Amino acid sequence: MTSTLHEFDGRVKAMVLNKFGGELQQCTFEPIVPGADGLVADVTHAGICGTDIHLQSGNLPIPLPVILGHESVGKVRQLGERMTRDANGTPLVAGDTISWASSIPCNNCFYCRGGQPSLCDLRKVYGINQSSDAWPHLSGGWAEQIYLQPDSTVVKLPDGTDPDDVIALGCAGPTAIHALQMIDKPQPGDVAVVQGSGPVGLALAMLIKLAGASTVIVVGGPDSRLEVARDLGIGDVHVNIFDSDESARLETVLPLTSSGRGADIVLEATGVPKAVSEGIAMVRRGGTYVVVGQYTDHGETPINPHYITKKQLRVQGSWASSPRDLVEYVGMVPQLARRFHLSKLVEHYPLERANEALADMQSGRTIKPVLVSA
Amino acid sequence: MTSTLHEFDGRVKAMVLNKFGGELQQCTFEPIVPGADGLVADVTHAGICGTDIHLQSGNLPIPLPVILGHESVGKVRQLGERMTRDANGTPLVAGDTISWASSIPCNNCFYCRGGQPSLCDLRKVYGINQSSDAWPHLSGGWAEQIYLQPDSTVVKLPDGTDPDDVIALGCAGPTAIHALQMIDKPQPGDVAVVQGSGPVGLALAMLIKLAGASTVIVVGGPDSRLEVARDLGIGDVHVNIFDSDESARLETVLPLTSSGRGADIVLEATGVPKAVSEGIAMVRRGGTYVVVGQYTDHGETPINPHYITKKQLRVQGSWASSPRDLVEYVGMVPQLARRFHLSKLVEHYPLERANEALADMQSGRTIKPVLVSA
Amino acid sequence: MTSTLHEFDGRVKAMVLNKFGGELQQCTFEPIVPGADGLVADVTHAGICGTDIHLQSGNLPIPLPVILGHESVGKVRQLGERMTRDANGTPLVAGDTISWASSIPCNNCFYCRGGQPSLCDLRKVYGINQSSDAWPHLSGGWAEQIYLQPDSTVVKLPDGTDPDDVIALGCAGPTAIHALQMIDKPQPGDVAVVQGSGPVGLALAMLIKLAGASTVIVVGGPDSRLEVARDLGIGDVHVNIFDSDESARLETVLPLTSSGRGADIVLEATGVPKAVSEGIAMVRRGGTYVVVGQYTDHGETPINPHYITKKQLRVQGSWASSPRDLVEYVGMVPQLARRFHLSKLVEHYPLERANEALADMQSGRTIKPVLVSA
Amino acid sequence: MTSTLHEFDGRVKAMVLNKFGGELQQCTFEPIVPGADGLVADVTHAGICGTDIHLQSGNLPIPLPVILGHESVGKVRQLGERMTRDANGTPLVAGDTISWASSIPCNNCFYCRGGQPSLCDLRKVYGINQSSDAWPHLSGGWAEQIYLQPDSTVVKLPDGTDPDDVIALGCAGPTAIHALQMIDKPQPGDVAVVQGSGPVGLALAMLIKLAGASTVIVVGGPDSRLEVARDLGIGDVHVNIFDSDESARLETVLPLTSSGRGADIVLEATGVPKAVSEGIAMVRRGGTYVVVGQYTDHGETPINPHYITKKQLRVQGSWASSPRDLVEYVGMVPQLARRFHLSKLVEHYPLERANEALADMQSGRTIKPVLVSA
Repeated sequence: MTSTLHEFDGRVKAMVLNKFGGELQQCTFEPIVPGADGLVADVTHAGICGTDIHLQSGNLPIPLPVILGHESVGKVRQLGERMTRDANGTPLVAGDTISWASSIPCNNCFYCRGGQPSLCDLRKVYGINQSSDAWPHLSGGWAEQIYLQPDSTVVKLPDGTDPDDVIALGCAGPTAIHALQMIDKPQPGDVAVVQGSGPVGLALAMLIKLAGASTVIVVGGPDSRLEVARDLGIGDVHVNIFDSDESARLETVLPLTSSGRGADIVLEATGVPKAVSEGIAMVRRGGTYVVVGQYTDHGETPINPHYITKKQLRVQGSWASSPRDLVEYVGMVPQLARRFHLSKLVEHYPLERANEALADMQSGRTIKPVLVSA
Repeated sequence: MTSTLHEFDGRVKAMVLNKFGGELQQCTFEPIVPGADGLVADVTHAGICGTDIHLQSGNLPIPLPVILGHESVGKVRQLGERMTRDANGTPLVAGDTISWASSIPCNNCFYCRGGQPSLCDLRKVYGINQSSDAWPHLSGGWAEQIYLQPDSTVVKLPDGTDPDDVIALGCAGPTAIHALQMIDKPQPGDVAVVQGSGPVGLALAMLIKLAGASTVIVVGGPDSRLEVARDLGIGDVHVNIFDSDESARLETVLPLTSSGRGADIVLEATGVPKAVSEGIAMVRRGGTYVVVGQYTDHGETPINPHYITKKQLRVQGSWASSPRDLVEYVGMVPQLARRFHLSKLVEHYPLERANEALADMQSGRTIKPVLVSA
Repeated sequence: MTSTLHEFDGRVKAMVLNKFGGELQQCTFEPIVPGADGLVADVTHAGICGTDIHLQSGNLPIPLPVILGHESVGKVRQLGERMTRDANGTPLVAGDTISWASSIPCNNCFYCRGGQPSLCDLRKVYGINQSSDAWPHLSGGWAEQIYLQPDSTVVKLPDGTDPDDVIALGCAGPTAIHALQMIDKPQPGDVAVVQGSGPVGLALAMLIKLAGASTVIVVGGPDSRLEVARDLGIGDVHVNIFDSDESARLETVLPLTSSGRGADIVLEATGVPKAVSEGIAMVRRGGTYVVVGQYTDHGETPINPHYITKKQLRVQGSWASSPRDLVEYVGMVPQLARRFHLSKLVEHYPLERANEALADMQSGRTIKPVLVSA
Repeated sequence: MTSTLHEFDGRVKAMVLNKFGGELQQCTFEPIVPGADGLVADVTHAGICGTDIHLQSGNLPIPLPVILGHESVGKVRQLGERMTRDANGTPLVAGDTISWASSIPCNNCFYCRGGQPSLCDLRKVYGINQSSDAWPHLSGGWAEQIYLQPDSTVVKLPDGTDPDDVIALGCAGPTAIHALQMIDKPQPGDVAVVQGSGPVGLALAMLIKLAGASTVIVVGGPDSRLEVARDLGIGDVHVNIFDSDESARLETVLPLTSSGRGADIVLEATGVPKAVSEGIAMVRRGGTYVVVGQYTDHGETPINPHYITKKQLRVQGSWASSPRDLVEYVGMVPQLARRFHLSKLVEHYPLERANEALADMQSGRTIKPVLVSA
């Protein structure tokens, strides 16, 4: 164990959600000794994601009590005897800075075997569906330590990587990677539209640019959020949905595309059903429309399927992310950080002030609160 | 010129549409001598397609007068001096039995260059957008002869092929090929649903079976039409939409799929917007939904985009067909004819009785009227 | 436990390889009670594969002693409490007839996460790299029982499936599925060449036909083997390599392809390096060449890379198979068995006569010996 | 006609190759008035390519006399009445700065219809297979004017584009685009190796970086050429083949790849057959190897096909380029020029000094001579 590890004696502190709608409560747990294929990490950075607000409110059926936190960076405290390498095959030692995939797919169902583990019904998800009452208790990021169970996907950060750059977009990074994996990725030179300027939208806009898109148009809002995008260097053109209607947006976007024929690729990251028909109107014939943002069920919306046929569109859904998406995302962070000012997004809060961080996120005072342990 | 060609003296007979909503009128034209890259064919079999009813009624903006007929088989009468081979590179001689693609794309626009000529705005279409007042006048199939202009896609029928097998599904054959080209074709072993039992639905069901689908479920109607499908050997299971509602159909279809998880691929060939949400409900997670049938604009329909994301669906539109689809289709006819009783669909009418054939098609007395010249 | 299960008391018989080059010896083992995620099966049919001859001879570095047998069918004897469903999600009960994938990938390495588990370095393989000295001892098919460890891929045979049809091509079935998964599968209508008429070649020829190939040309030998192919209904044309040289074979094959331009797809399943340059000569420009058969290292062979560029070929390697390939193969057996007389290949031997079966295979007296237990 | 056009009276000057191995001779031609679908351009920049040296020497069977020059930029002098838009649909007027694809595919053969026009046997190529004795005479770039025949692919340069940036890599730009189109383009984050540091190698290295590769390793030489690459900002690591042997290069390259497992993608652009086996050794298992550089036939080389199977490689050939590759390349030049100092490569020569330019290229005095007309 190296000196860079947090000095630690006695019990492990964690912020626990005991009741939907209630505040998190500070609890302590017995430290864990990893099994042969497991790993105990000190959590140094734990992101708060919009989904956490929903989880806290009880909008999703999760077991209580629970330690939330599904996007984190930490340091290896103790390795199981067979847990010697990360997902890239890189040797692991105590003190290494790592991140890990939020989910552990079952590896055995139809979807896992078919290469689509994000569709696995049986996957365990850190910080979401693992109660702190059940072994191994420390299964969420909002704690001083986490136990990474066998079959977890662990990845060492590339040398010199700032953990804030990894955590800045949180789970939106792997989610965006996943969406781009579903399609014939953008061609260099493509004009792309991203609908939505939340974390997934920003991550998509950034990754498409990295993949060579010539023009990336971010359609989102409010203006303060677009200002953040500009500040980070994300997006070439920004269209504010709060001071435009659908036809005005079309009139803005189409002339930016080659011969006005529409964007080569449009990615939806809004969560708003009616964005879909608007997005379809923005794609050129023969183009691709990716539906990433309809994660929750907001019901039906009018769509004209004639345009899918007539434009010969590919409309591709993308659900969550797979463990390898996290690995790929972490591998790309150095490239991203050179082009985009990712860490500007991040605001640190001590773990104990998690409730304050949640409140600040809900009020919009901060975009990306990150809980840190010394 | 071989003895198999129609004896021919004087002018060329054709059935001409002069007025939307009116009957076709028999006219005669000057015979044509082909230019160096052209070809004159005797039309021996000219299909009547549902679209022709719309064209006659004036539902689509086409130039008048016009010789309709966009799906045909004929015999080479005279070849231009540079028109020596068909699209497969097979030498052509007078008397050869041929078919030809209905459209001549421009080859120069963004879509043509990008390998999607069915999206070409400038393509000429035999029997549709070429007036009989304009050179070369004989540009539709409902005539004794047709002039196949330079850049036409001509293909010699494989030896021993019955022209009735080629014409039986008419333009639905290439349209179905086109749809399957847009996607990672069905895997052998897949369970497939085809929505619609018109010509395109039947062609899709047949081609998917040829590609190895284990079970093909045809959801269509009325029962007489499903009876035809059974009679031809098309489809393994037939679900009548006229004696079932959406939930009953789902309850019929899902248990036929592996573990009840939904069809691997669903293809829409109905032209009815609300079929789309029903079809989406029938696809398994990670599966593919192909929208072929929304050729005309019937407006919006409620669709829940959450299912596209959650099921991680590929929803693929397919528009019309490309010349090479006709070439591929004709190449497959011998295989298809061995498995399916295609020619049973066909009913012959002499060219002169085209109006009777149209009336019989509209009344449902015949499914596939084909105009024949001696 | 149902009455269809083998009556069983006392110890489990198995044929064990103790020494490379030596005969198998009959041994007995303690019966196993499955752990929560495991399964004990009675092996009813265990195939002998060409690789087994190599393993017996010591050509590959495997641990001894070992119970060989990596392609098997059996009946569920006892299920672990969490082992309630097969890979398709179908409930399992004692007495069900099942097959299982030979390998258990690690699920955690770069290749497993990237969807290429056949490249996993850490995968366990039944009947190959699991010594009978190590727990759980019963890890090969040439025994009365096998213990299927956690993370095994188990699949129930479709109702009415004859186990002999499943075992007839043994591991060649999933291997061929795997190869076709690597590429844009054959298009219906394609002309295909398969080089090699061993089990993998026959499996490829059969599957390509199922996927709609119009003509399948099998280039192999000796004539007795091609006779078997004809007898099973596999392949449309058979070219004997023992009474032809390379140029004669090209002259036979090319005229069978469209306009003589070469096969749309050629699949190599010979294990002979020099077959590769011959195969490349048989593919048309823009076509696909799949290298499945170069499983063992026979060194370099002269190849002209100019043809790869000039023909714009896709040359695709395919290595072994993945667990899902077995699942897909078993799902297709009913379709295959309707078209091909698979079970004709099989010759039964009682388990105890495994040495005789091996000898008969080596002498060519039988093509597919299968060890059966009552 | 705008004032930016070259003042022009009387006959058109061109440099003509009359005899293989001889010098070019200055000749004059009658000016051409374009037909309805054609276009006359003033050639302002005409690149000299390595292939031109071969053509001059008579290494390839081309018709004489010929005006060479297959990579050019010019200005529209006169448009045919139907030649109103470029390949992107942008309106064209006299004075516009344009480039054009070197080839005019037939649009009718098997390969053209199948979306692979670079395989077309019948394509016309400016500056190569169009003799200046045949109409329209002005069919090569090394002249004051060129006649762009019907079906040519013309593209207007994006506003503000420096023609030197377009011409800097000449036909290597579209060739590299073509190669990347053949495969699942590089993933952002990939490690790529480019074998060869000629124009195609440099273009590949640049485009892969644009598509998000994390590390691009250029293996080429001599050192002066690698110095040029560094100077242009092309490639992250440069390995000199003249001071290393194959095993040393492997030892240099592999540690630069993730976990030393090999490059995700290797692209061959050397023209040297033995580079292929070295390149195969550099690709990781499951990776992609693209063979672009084996344009001319240098015969067989020893290759071990076992590695293609064992590594489960995709080996993809790529032949020349298609017209749309030129369109895409020109569209990307602004992006490329912002990242790479392309125009540094170019050295101008007046058209009349073409022989001097050729000599300087052969002696290595200049990398990219470009013939300019006032």
